[in-house]
Amino acid sequence: MQNQKLYLYNTLTRKKELFTPLNPPFVGMYVCGPTVYNDVHLGNVRTFISFDVLFRYLKHLDYKVRYVRNITDAGHLEDDSDEDKISKRAVLERLEPMEIVQKYTVSFHEIMRIFNVLPPSIEPTATGHILEQQEMAMQILKNGWAYEVNGTVYFDVEKFAQHYDYTALTGRNLEELLNNTRELEGQDEKRGRLDFALWIKAKPQHLMQWNSPWGKGFPGWHIECSAMSTKYLGEQFDIHGGGMDLAPTHHTNEIAQNIAYCGKQPARYWLHTNMLTLNGKKMSKSLGNVVLPLELINGTNPLIPKGFSPSVIRFFMMQTHYRSTLDITLDALNAAEKGYQRLIESFELLTTLKPAESSSIDIQAFRQKCYDAMNDDLNTAVLIAELFEIAKWINKANEGQVQLSAKDIEELKKLFNDFFYEILGIPQRDANNDAVLQKLKALVEIVLEIRSEAKKNKNYTLSDAIRNKLESIGIVIKDTAEGTRWSMK
Amino acid sequence: MQNQKLYLYNTLTRKKELFTPLNPPFVGMYVCGPTVYNDVHLGNVRTFISFDVLFRYLKHLDYKVRYVRNITDAGHLEDDSDEDKISKRAVLERLEPMEIVQKYTVSFHEIMRIFNVLPPSIEPTATGHILEQQEMAMQILKNGWAYEVNGTVYFDVEKFAQHYDYTALTGRNLEELLNNTRELEGQDEKRGRLDFALWIKAKPQHLMQWNSPWGKGFPGWHIECSAMSTKYLGEQFDIHGGGMDLAPTHHTNEIAQNIAYCGKQPARYWLHTNMLTLNGKKMSKSLGNVVLPLELINGTNPLIPKGFSPSVIRFFMMQTHYRSTLDITLDALNAAEKGYQRLIESFELLTTLKPAESSSIDIQAFRQKCYDAMNDDLNTAVLIAELFEIAKWINKANEGQVQLSAKDIEELKKLFNDFFYEILGIPQRDANNDAVLQKLKALVEIVLEIRSEAKKNKNYTLSDAIRNKLESIGIVIKDTAEGTRWSMK
Repeated sequence: MQNQKLYLYNTLTRKKELFTPLNPPFVGMYVCGPTVYNDVHLGNVRTFISFDVLFRYLKHLDYKVRYVRNITDAGHLEDDSDEDKISKRAVLERLEPMEIVQKYTVSFHEIMRIFNVLPPSIEPTATGHILEQQEMAMQILKNGWAYEVNGTVYFDVEKFAQHYDYTALTGRNLEELLNNTRELEGQDEKRGRLDFALWIKAKPQHLMQWNSPWGKGFPGWHIECSAMSTKYLGEQFDIHGGGMDLAPTHHTNEIAQNIAYCGKQPARYWLHTNMLTLNGKKMSKSLGNVVLPLELINGTNPLIPKGFSPSVIRFFMMQTHYRSTLDITLDALNAAEKGYQRLIESFELLTTLKPAESSSIDIQAFRQKCYDAMNDDLNTAVLIAELFEIAKWINKANEGQVQLSAKDIEELKKLFNDFFYEILGIPQRDANNDAVLQKLKALVEIVLEIRSEAKKNKNYTLSDAIRNKLESIGIVIKDTAEGTRWSMK
Repeated sequence: MQNQKLYLYNTLTRKKELFTPLNPPFVGMYVCGPTVYNDVHLGNVRTFISFDVLFRYLKHLDYKVRYVRNITDAGHLEDDSDEDKISKRAVLERLEPMEIVQKYTVSFHEIMRIFNVLPPSIEPTATGHILEQQEMAMQILKNGWAYEVNGTVYFDVEKFAQHYDYTALTGRNLEELLNNTRELEGQDEKRGRLDFALWIKAKPQHLMQWNSPWGKGFPGWHIECSAMSTKYLGEQFDIHGGGMDLAPTHHTNEIAQNIAYCGKQPARYWLHTNMLTLNGKKMSKSLGNVVLPLELINGTNPLIPKGFSPSVIRFFMMQTHYRSTLDITLDALNAAEKGYQRLIESFELLTTLKPAESSSIDIQAFRQKCYDAMNDDLNTAVLIAELFEIAKWINKANEGQVQLSAKDIEELKKLFNDFFYEILGIPQRDANNDAVLQKLKALVEIVLEIRSEAKKNKNYTLSDAIRNKLESIGIVIKDTAEGTRWSMK
């Protein structure tokens, strides 16, 4: 299947480019993961779902993908006691950052599981790679692109910018950037105002610190991704992704670090997901309009006062291209819920559709249209539109307006399974629950048969009693010209 | 609630001792976790469930527990190519141990989730603490209890044994131990035959290696637990646990390392879980009688050809004390399933029981009996027997033989919730699934009413049709003197 031509928008070149891996069939992909000191933000969930779709699509195209998504667990918590008190306190009585890390890592994994995001191939942690980060900082220092002041190692951005295009990723003007950055103050250790730390000297009250060639300290914010991508994917790899807010600083500095370390720009394709808004506004704690992933599912946040299943939420996100802003509103979620249901119901018709001798429509092109949507920079919005288009034809077949052969029915089932469940990764409902639900549906049909028989025999006492009893347990029936329909509250 | 006197069997002293934490209300507990290079063994699952019960009980007693359970992810995979080929191969083409680690860590967490094992407070990895392990080895070397040969650092067991009781944990005779260990061979670097490595020099083809003061290498098997327990719980903490197979070597060496490092025996209470057998035999790959946790649930292993819910399996394990051998047989699992169902049904009667003005039995002692069982070295087998005893009285109340007041009914509900769900940690069935199941049950009752009405009206055609239709969807009904009973296949 690798003959599909996949185009991806590369932030670095600002255009869509044909994806060609460095070393096919292998693909190396790195995505900046969560910081596990608080609940994962819905915007991050969108980012991880977006790259999950890319991961799934590459695997569908038979690439051997090594997908690395890190966990940023090196935090900056401080003990507010003075140095003397800290050293006297028993280890168990001290706040332990790794307990916080564990709590939010567990809840992050739970959210990923609920939204059917596949675990990456490797999920390295910053604290798990202290040695590697120290060694990279040491090499950058040796190569002359960094300097040490008083136990802290700084990257020399202005020197770097004289030799390389520091702002290559975003295309910003370096002069303007410098002018917009505050002047160094007297006590500042840094030489240049854009310089950033590779390794930071720790104060005694800093709760996470490690021995290093420069004394006790902890890694700077950017070095972990350079160290871990290099370790697991090599000095050059295929795809680097993250939220677009990371491009101007974190990713820009990551590129500078890698070049300073080994002379190579690390990734060939840089992909960035766009932001998420709520009712047209940026979500932020200061605006008080943050909705957490679980609140969206449980309907416990007054800003979106209704719960939606993870399947509907993921479907809703997929209806917007990853490089467009995604606006969350109750109306849009309700519409997505209806659309999701309609799509599922149409494709479910395939299981009961009576096959014809031959098809009166040509369904061969359907699959390629789905691929075309994905090949166009993962346009999941267009893909879903294609699926709705196919659903229309299935409905027509159900109404007898067109015919589908047994083989084509199977083809369409497979198409839906491939694109809806495997590639878009929409969570399937729980199988065990489904078994009970199937039994319940079958039993309702039996009861409706008994009722219909009773009506035929003019036993209206029984048929009315059945209607009332069903209603009492939340099953509502409606007699129509085409027979009895029922729904469940 | 801390007035409960908890006694724990301490392997170190070979008796049950009153549990008194070093630093109440804090409790530090360390348990040796899984090696993530293959599927977790059912015996390990039992161990982690056993310590989960201890964790839950300590929390129930209002202790502030820091529970550390590590992940052993530093593996010993080698590349079978020669040195030259390894260095030329692209990173992506090389086997990456961390991919294997990720696969089995994810599946381990999934198994723990299914069996309702709470995540520990901290879950540190061996690869995440290379620096700490190097620093501990360095200190042991400085303290004179280890020696370096050619890039490998060995612990000097015989020297240690001259000053400390090396076999304190198991009480084995050191002379015998020495006699049963093979003689050193000519090319052996070790000085003594019981010596073990703290740090191991890596061959070039070794896939996991780190720089160290002794050149490139990787940590020995035992040092990670000493380094991580010391980092997160301090040089001395309360409880150390693991499977009993770990006591003679891993835990014995851990104690030696800690004493050599700082002069202190690390944990006050050493707890060990007993082994698990299948149909009376040790499970082992060579005997071909290994049943995996998921196979037990899905019923896909011919040795136990029926699936059991995680709730039943955990209940079954709890019926044996953690220090006794647990024998898995189909008969025993079937019996546990029946017992589990009977217990649940009795306690469910509490929701429909009509309260009396006052109780005719004294239920105050019930709760203390449950505590007494747990306080006696976590005797979950006795606890379950107590719950069955209480169930008898609930059944009597249901039959009108004894009375229970509204307050006592609530007390009993709380007791069951506390001991069965919170402390024993039996997984509750899925709530969503339960809602559909409740609807299905209600609908079956409606259908049975219709049938009973039909029989009363001598409409046997209808009553027989209903019986047959229900059977066709797997619902079997049985007319008895007390009315119609039904069951679901």
